[in-house]
Amino acid sequence: MNHKMICRTLGNIITLEGALMALPALCALCYREWRVALVFFCTAAASTFAGWIVSRIFAHCDRTIYAREGFVTVGLAWILMSAVGAVPLILTGDIASPVDAFFEIVSGLTTTGASILRDVTALSHGGAFWRSFTHWIGGMGVLVLMMAIFSDSTGRSIHIMRAEMPGPVVDKIVPRVKDTAKILYLMYIGLTLTEVVFLLFGGMSLFESLIHSFGTAGTGGFSVRSDSIGAYSPYLQWVITIFMLLFGVNFNLYYLLLLKRFRSALRSEELWTYLGTVVVATGIITANILSMIGSFGEAFRQAAFQVASIITTTGYSSADFNLWPNLSRVILLLLMFMGGCAGSTAGGLKVSRVCILFKGAGRELSKLLHPRSVTTVRFEGKPLDESTRAGVTSYFAVYALLMAAIFLIIGHEPFDLETHITAVVACFNNVGPGFSAVGPMGGYADYGPVSKIALSAAMLLGRLEIYPLLLTFTPATWRKR
Amino acid sequence: MNHKMICRTLGNIITLEGALMALPALCALCYREWRVALVFFCTAAASTFAGWIVSRIFAHCDRTIYAREGFVTVGLAWILMSAVGAVPLILTGDIASPVDAFFEIVSGLTTTGASILRDVTALSHGGAFWRSFTHWIGGMGVLVLMMAIFSDSTGRSIHIMRAEMPGPVVDKIVPRVKDTAKILYLMYIGLTLTEVVFLLFGGMSLFESLIHSFGTAGTGGFSVRSDSIGAYSPYLQWVITIFMLLFGVNFNLYYLLLLKRFRSALRSEELWTYLGTVVVATGIITANILSMIGSFGEAFRQAAFQVASIITTTGYSSADFNLWPNLSRVILLLLMFMGGCAGSTAGGLKVSRVCILFKGAGRELSKLLHPRSVTTVRFEGKPLDESTRAGVTSYFAVYALLMAAIFLIIGHEPFDLETHITAVVACFNNVGPGFSAVGPMGGYADYGPVSKIALSAAMLLGRLEIYPLLLTFTPATWRKR
Repeated sequence: MNHKMICRTLGNIITLEGALMALPALCALCYREWRVALVFFCTAAASTFAGWIVSRIFAHCDRTIYAREGFVTVGLAWILMSAVGAVPLILTGDIASPVDAFFEIVSGLTTTGASILRDVTALSHGGAFWRSFTHWIGGMGVLVLMMAIFSDSTGRSIHIMRAEMPGPVVDKIVPRVKDTAKILYLMYIGLTLTEVVFLLFGGMSLFESLIHSFGTAGTGGFSVRSDSIGAYSPYLQWVITIFMLLFGVNFNLYYLLLLKRFRSALRSEELWTYLGTVVVATGIITANILSMIGSFGEAFRQAAFQVASIITTTGYSSADFNLWPNLSRVILLLLMFMGGCAGSTAGGLKVSRVCILFKGAGRELSKLLHPRSVTTVRFEGKPLDESTRAGVTSYFAVYALLMAAIFLIIGHEPFDLETHITAVVACFNNVGPGFSAVGPMGGYADYGPVSKIALSAAMLLGRLEIYPLLLTFTPATWRKR
Repeated sequence: MNHKMICRTLGNIITLEGALMALPALCALCYREWRVALVFFCTAAASTFAGWIVSRIFAHCDRTIYAREGFVTVGLAWILMSAVGAVPLILTGDIASPVDAFFEIVSGLTTTGASILRDVTALSHGGAFWRSFTHWIGGMGVLVLMMAIFSDSTGRSIHIMRAEMPGPVVDKIVPRVKDTAKILYLMYIGLTLTEVVFLLFGGMSLFESLIHSFGTAGTGGFSVRSDSIGAYSPYLQWVITIFMLLFGVNFNLYYLLLLKRFRSALRSEELWTYLGTVVVATGIITANILSMIGSFGEAFRQAAFQVASIITTTGYSSADFNLWPNLSRVILLLLMFMGGCAGSTAGGLKVSRVCILFKGAGRELSKLLHPRSVTTVRFEGKPLDESTRAGVTSYFAVYALLMAAIFLIIGHEPFDLETHITAVVACFNNVGPGFSAVGPMGGYADYGPVSKIALSAAMLLGRLEIYPLLLTFTPATWRKR
């Protein structure tokens, strides 16, 4: 294990996080929140300095890393970032309890959007900005950002990228990792700014436009209003609906579009499954809530908003879907597991994994019928690699076992099972709101500290797709071979 | 596809089911329920005759069958048996609605124990006997019984046995399938009769001893009292607890004991995992319910009873565990998934599958750390076949996808999500009672007909371990190659 290189990377990450904290500090200044601004500037300076020192100490280390260093770096980096990111919220008094602040920042970075705040409007502007900005940072991945900025002399950082990027298969879109990271971030910034412009055009303030664009871009879901997006105009709700769906698409497709390779972009099986699911789910839910809401336009908008929000695991709400009829709630619960496309900022299992699971099930049946014949499963027009298929099924098994474990840990709390089950599902899949007590109008404030830590672990496991975090805490990872 | 041989076997099955119906007819005679006795005798005669005719017509067919005929035979046989078995309940008026009667007999044969009856004490003795007797028939498998009785000249019936017996790997305990089936049934009858004696000794009436022994032996759970086992003495509750646990053990181990191969029997990893889980779960639940119940002995007995009932997927209850604290309920819910040992009469995923899932997860992690090294997983002292491991993971994925599908179908009904989720889990894993409205004091009566059919499908899928039923309804199975 190349400990030095891991420390060096962690140093860089903290430097970067410190630098990013300058933005909430500036935001606080704009709103004349002097104490908040001071806290953010000091934390920013302290972490930049500390990170810089660490990365200097290990500047001349051997930079060769392998898969396991990649996993451990990502696992440790995310825990460290969450801890450091929680500090300013504690110091400003926005969230006094360290466990709560940690939960909130984990929820931010993992783009979950689950909150322990009872009154979100009581936050300082600087604190609210930072909280939402973590969505944006975590959405595309902070190590990917680091790779886009810092130089990379070994070409090995693909191990880190693989460990941080979601989806069953991670490919570089251009040969060099650094360039891939740059392209991804440029598209990400471009899409985010476009959304800001559209929201401003609809009359939203600049501050709220930024907050909600961060939340949409990272598919996070933190808002600054107690009823999330419910109070905004239909135009604004539609803008957010569309952008949520856009951020749930594999970013590689946008790159193909930029290269004018429209045909290859539109051939994506995952994209069509994703869009198809959105259309079908919206249709059924519209019909299901029509009698409750009255007007078709309103029912359609609310159905589309909630479906987009849940399938992309954003977690915004324009209505209290906890009060919807059962069929709609059941559909939303199942969408939580599915999530967006691989290579997007969305959480969940990812559409491609669900496709592969279904196709694998079909193959299993045909193997039982014809034990001796070789059947190949095709996905995205190519025969599906057997090891990818086996990897997806194993991933699913580990995913379910870990959810069961988290469920067991939080299970002693005095809520109903619906709350517990949806809390685990919503956190693990980085959705945010669940049903019952953790529904869109509720929150995670009443869980005890142990459960909050367990749910934080669930969010990190979900965002990092399990293995980086699990391997970081496996003794065998640290053993010399 | 050898249609003739399938028809012939189905004919035999119906003959056998008809013959077995003579028992409830006799029971009705003993209680002077003349109408009930008449119904059972007539149905018995009719189905024996019809079955005999069909098997005569196809008597001289080619008897060669392959895996797919095995699956289809088992799938069709179970649906047909459930339909035929429901007839007397409809005709006696015990259960007037055909869908309800079908649900009840599916629940009986699959040893689920989920009931649509609002008042179980209103059943005729004959009807109650038949309902519980289906547990006993379904527990070890009716096709296995058929193989033990009818002659088998091809040696191919292992395909049927494999399709009907639970667990990831099915082996003959002696070279001939017919002998294996006989030995299994003799041990099954022996254990059942032993339980009857123990229950009679505790002062239970012969009728109730039989009913509850059938329910325990098949790990079913139908009772004839509205509070299940709650009103019986502590001695009787302990007897049932111990026998539930005994019937959750792989029957191959009993055969090893009979052969005096104690050491190989006690080396079973699955057995120890099963017993370990029971001990740990009982310990935690005892501590958890102690303050609620007061006396340690009482708390321990109730915890042990419920744990044994749920892990073996029997579904008897000696207390309304729906009212227990959350931690206990969460543990019970997780045990529902686990189930008993492979090769037992219990449902669920089976302990061995859960072990293999966990070991597979560990192997997945070590493969990520050392991509080039070959790691073998050991189970039951032997290196685990890669195809078995992959089969178990795929099985788990299909299992989860199907549960999600059933959940989606029943999801529109006006119950809370806890009811829906536990209804699917309890039916698919052949447990019976869930929580909330389908808890031990509730039932499935209020579900609509579509949901009852869907839940019946869930029970059959769970009992037959998915593939036989799924393949029966896959068009590709019926296509000529």
